[in-house]
This record gives sequence, C-alpha cells and structure tokens, in this order.
Amino acid sequence: MGYTEFTIEGRNAVIEAFRAGKPIDKIFILDGCQDGPVSTIKREAKKKDVMIKYVTKERLDQMSETGKHQGVIAYAAAYEYAELEDIFDKAREKGEDPFILILDNIEDPHNLGAIIRTANLAGAHGVIIPKNRAVGLTATVARTSAGALNFTPVVKVTNITKTIQELKDRGLWFVCADMGGTEMYKLNLKGPIGLVIGNEGDGVSRLVKENCDMIASIPMKGDIDSLNASVAAGVLAYEIVRQRLQ
Amino acid sequence: MGYTEFTIEGRNAVIEAFRAGKPIDKIFILDGCQDGPVSTIKREAKKKDVMIKYVTKERLDQMSETGKHQGVIAYAAAYEYAELEDIFDKAREKGEDPFILILDNIEDPHNLGAIIRTANLAGAHGVIIPKNRAVGLTATVARTSAGALNFTPVVKVTNITKTIQELKDRGLWFVCADMGGTEMYKLNLKGPIGLVIGNEGDGVSRLVKENCDMIASIPMKGDIDSLNASVAAGVLAYEIVRQRLQ
Repeated sequence: MGYTEFTIEGRNAVIEAFRAGKPIDKIFILDGCQDGPVSTIKREAKKKDVMIKYVTKERLDQMSETGKHQGVIAYAAAYEYAELEDIFDKAREKGEDPFILILDNIEDPHNLGAIIRTANLAGAHGVIIPKNRAVGLTATVARTSAGALNFTPVVKVTNITKTIQELKDRGLWFVCADMGGTEMYKLNLKGPIGLVIGNEGDGVSRLVKENCDMIASIPMKGDIDSLNASVAAGVLAYEIVRQRLQ
Repeated sequence: MGYTEFTIEGRNAVIEAFRAGKPIDKIFILDGCQDGPVSTIKREAKKKDVMIKYVTKERLDQMSETGKHQGVIAYAAAYEYAELEDIFDKAREKGEDPFILILDNIEDPHNLGAIIRTANLAGAHGVIIPKNRAVGLTATVARTSAGALNFTPVVKVTNITKTIQELKDRGLWFVCADMGGTEMYKLNLKGPIGLVIGNEGDGVSRLVKENCDMIASIPMKGDIDSLNASVAAGVLAYEIVRQRLQ
C-alpha cells in the first residue's frame, strides 16, 4: 500500500499516459502552445475532466525534473492496492474484531475519499471497492481522504458478492444501508462486521443486498430522499463505533 | 424561501452579472468566439472557477429565451434567505423542540450543500450561516443539497455569536463539535438545541466556542486528524436524532 504523485514530461509521454489510462490529475501547458500533439492532449484532458493550467516557460522549467518538458508536464497519481489479508492483519494488530467498509460502486471520487477518511477515523480496518465501473484511487480521492489513504488498506476485488461470501466464511456479519430496513439503533452491530454502502444513485445492488445479513436504515425525518453517500457511510460507521464502545 | 435558476444572455449582461457578484454557475460560449468582451468573460469565469462550455450557434439559439444571446449565455442562481422566525415556525408546526445547525464559516459549497441535505433528513428545523467569508447559497450548494434547499430554511446572520446569545435567551442549548470535548454519547443532547459546526480547516472559532454550553467530540480511532466537515455534521446531527428518539 502506498500513494505518491509523480510528473510525466513531454508531449508523447503525456499522450501515452492518457492512452494507457493512467490517472492524470493536472496538466501544465506552455501558454500559447497550439500544435497538433498539444491539441490532442487538450482534447484528452477535456474528455477525462483533467484540469489544464497554462503557464510560462519559466514555470515549466522550474517544475521540470528532466529538463525536457517540450511545453507539457502532467501530474499523475500512483498507488498500490492492498490485499484482503492486510485488513485482517490490521484488525489482529489492534486486537479487534474486523470492521470493513464495502463500497458497492461509489462513483464520485470526493465521496470515495471522504469514506476512506471516515473509515480511518471510525477505526475500520480496511475498505473494499469493486474493480469495474466504480471510481478507483485517483489523485482526487487521495486528496479528499486527507491522508487516510496512507493508513487504511483499500482492496480492489472483481466480484463484491463473492468477496462477501468469502468474508462470511471467515466469520463476518454483513449489514447494508438501505431504506425499508431496520432502524440502525435497533440492530446488533457488534462483532466482526462488514458495512456495505451502495451507489450514490441506485443504492446497494440487489444481489449484494440478498447476501447481507441485515439491512440498516438511517431514520429519515425530512422531505427529500437520501443522505449524501459519504454522510450516510459516516452515520452508519459511527453507529457501529457507538455500539463497539458500549 | 425559494430557489430558482435563470439565464443571463448577452456579453454585457454577463459581464455586469460578474461585476455585481451574482453567483454564476455555468457559461455557454459560441465556439471560436474570441473578441474582447468574450475574453473578459473567460477571464472572470476563470477567476471565479465558473465552468465554461463551448457550444454551437444552434445550441445557443435553442437555449436562448430572448433570442439576443450574442454568443454568450450564463446560468445564474437566485435564492431567498429565510428569517429566524421561519425556523421557529417550522419547529412549532411539527410540535418539536427547535433543532438548528449553525455553520461557523463552512467554505466549501459541496460541504454546505451536503450539510443542508443532512439537516433536512435529520429533522433539523433550519440552518444558520454567517454573512461574511463563508460560502453562500450558490447553484453548487443547491445542487449538492439534493433539493433540501427548497424545504429547510437557511438564515444568514451578521454575527454568529450574537445570534447564539439571542437563541439562548429563547431557550436553546448550544453544542459545538471540537476535539478535546466530551464524547458525544455521554452528553445530553435532547431538548431545544443548536449544533455548531466549524470551518473545514480551523474548526469552531474561539468566541463561538466560548458561547457554547457543551463541546462534543466524535471518537477518533484513526491515524489522521479529522472527519470531513459534512460527515462530522452528519454524525453529530444523528447522535441528536438518536437521543431524541429514545
């Protein structure tokens, strides 16, 4: 596990990074630069919602590590995912029952970052995210996690349902957040537990929900439908904290 | 109270809107348009972090309500703030003790929106924000509130400390979120209450904290400093909900 930022310098290197799907955070381009490769970079950046800053040659020269920036420097993110065993190791180290957050397709990097931050502070031993569709560990996630990404293992799995079944075999109970479940205060959320948080719009997917032991509902006393996903994750994670402290 | 979006059409109208400090959400500019006023608009948009979309003449013609867009259409937000009495009315209507969220300088519009959303769902009767420095009700806030802005009164006050004193005279107790306070589960948070959430970086200001009756701490079991402000607001607001439900 680990997270660092690094620079990619030069037009071709940046274009290749885009093509390889590397998570680029920000691009610095020489102000006034308009040729073909630079247009390609601008187009790719627009497509992927990457911020472009136009800067002077002096600024680029200062930033450059290779001295060969050709008018373009990109900031990219590099990270390593953890393994399931890292989460269990963490729980064992602390002498605690495992407490894992499973994110069933969180799409917004700010939500993912905020949830990793919450997982760290609520004492969860790790976070599990799916390989496909959902957002991965981008620079925005790292920033929004406020450093938590350096401490809390994040594991990427191919199939959330299969992972839940494996973890059940290892003694975990699963609770997912959804409307129409039992009020969270009335559930027993002590012991080894996996808390499943669904997608921002669609909630927890049917198959994942069917594999959970409990459905927890946050009391809703208002006029609108649902809490922001990272707020809901925080409220539920802290109900687990409260019960564990008793 | 109310919230609507409207368009501003034409170069001068958009430039004037920027100069008047109107909260502009997004600007559509005719692709290829490069003259002086358009450059001014682009510069202002960059300064205020407003998203620009370059579109075709057909698209602008479709969007235009006046037929005189001159290549530029801006989306702006209009809203009305509520009065303190609206919050008390809301509590009275529901036959509940007043429950108010006071935001001591929240700066991020996504946090403000998420907190208004949480306030609505946790059954708070209103939100109070300060006039200066903090973010106001922009289009981003409205969007992030997921509609809650249409239901939950938001009041803007000149001086948070003075407002807390006034509300104390009307029977409210004040609790603020800060490290080094009492674990929130051990406080009595029932009855008429104001929950104070501090700034993202600096927390609750000294003077405001001195005026609170209680300091509540969320248990922190992790390696980093603090929760995201909107998550912390959610966790605390729901501790109040839990105690009220007992």
